[in-house]
Amino acid sequence: MTAEEVKSMMYVQTHGVDEPGKTATPFFLAAAAAAMDIEAAIYFTMNGATLLERGVAEELMIKRGEGGQSLRFFMDQALELDVKFYVCQPSLDLHDLTMEDVIDGVEMIGGAAFNDMALEADAVITF
Amino acid sequence: MTAEEVKSMMYVQTHGVDEPGKTATPFFLAAAAAAMDIEAAIYFTMNGATLLERGVAEELMIKRGEGGQSLRFFMDQALELDVKFYVCQPSLDLHDLTMEDVIDGVEMIGGAAFNDMALEADAVITF
Amino acid sequence: MTAEEVKSMMYVQTHGVDEPGKTATPFFLAAAAAAMDIEAAIYFTMNGATLLERGVAEELMIKRGEGGQSLRFFMDQALELDVKFYVCQPSLDLHDLTMEDVIDGVEMIGGAAFNDMALEADAVITF
Repeated sequence: MTAEEVKSMMYVQTHGVDEPGKTATPFFLAAAAAAMDIEAAIYFTMNGATLLERGVAEELMIKRGEGGQSLRFFMDQALELDVKFYVCQPSLDLHDLTMEDVIDGVEMIGGAAFNDMALEADAVITF
Repeated sequence: MTAEEVKSMMYVQTHGVDEPGKTATPFFLAAAAAAMDIEAAIYFTMNGATLLERGVAEELMIKRGEGGQSLRFFMDQALELDVKFYVCQPSLDLHDLTMEDVIDGVEMIGGAAFNDMALEADAVITF
Repeated sequence: MTAEEVKSMMYVQTHGVDEPGKTATPFFLAAAAAAMDIEAAIYFTMNGATLLERGVAEELMIKRGEGGQSLRFFMDQALELDVKFYVCQPSLDLHDLTMEDVIDGVEMIGGAAFNDMALEADAVITF
């Protein structure tokens, strides 16, 4: 496949630890995209930044049929498939977080960089 | 109009019975799209799946000016205009629902199928 | 730059006064877009319409690091950069608002006009 043929999708996660039922879907879909050879990224903004704090995703349990998985399971699945994680500065500020509080593998970007990525992506799905 | 000229829009509904004020818009916009000869689909994920449980939409009242309408009214308007309804498996699991609990006219699709549809749509609007 | 080269982005704001932490991002990103010579618009729907009521944004404080800013600050920043504000009729109804209650510089559009704008935009980001 040539570079021109690679599709890209950007997922935006606005939901955080206060709405656990809304946290897993972006990771699940981004992992599915990456498995389809789509370049996938998740941008964490608003309350989404709270999911990136070290130790948080391990404690969030996501119901799946009879059982469940921690959010960290879905997060790791996405990271292992090379889904990129981006966070915006103002949303860190909003929750008194700095990049030092955040798990490995996350890059901080500004609003202009986000807009550029959104324009370049073949689809942007905001949650 | 040839097939190439038909535009398509996908709406994503993440809000459910716990936020009635956020439930009608996707049906309203998808029906408007269908009336414009746009191929329109709604994908129910996260809490959105709860709207599809039989008997639920009839009970959700949506305020409109002085009066109101049940959510079922908006849903039927969309279905009659041939808006497609899709639901994702994990969001059914999340709410202890199966396809047997769900109203007629809904198709269950996986993450990969959703990603494909999102890439192919001319616009994806997530609520 | 010729007209054909101008990119456009549409942001959709579904969050209102009940979720202050989710209100500033669309203004921030739309202002960033406008500063990049992207045509930017914000469409207020669902609870988003509540942010447009006169006197409301002045009272909503948004945390930024040690300090804070009123939401009106972010709103004005966007308006000064010529970001367009659109509101949908049903969401005004939902909150017992009319165009007379709304700040200056907002245009009311219907579902069909929104769909057209979404199809024409280079990216649609819903919050």
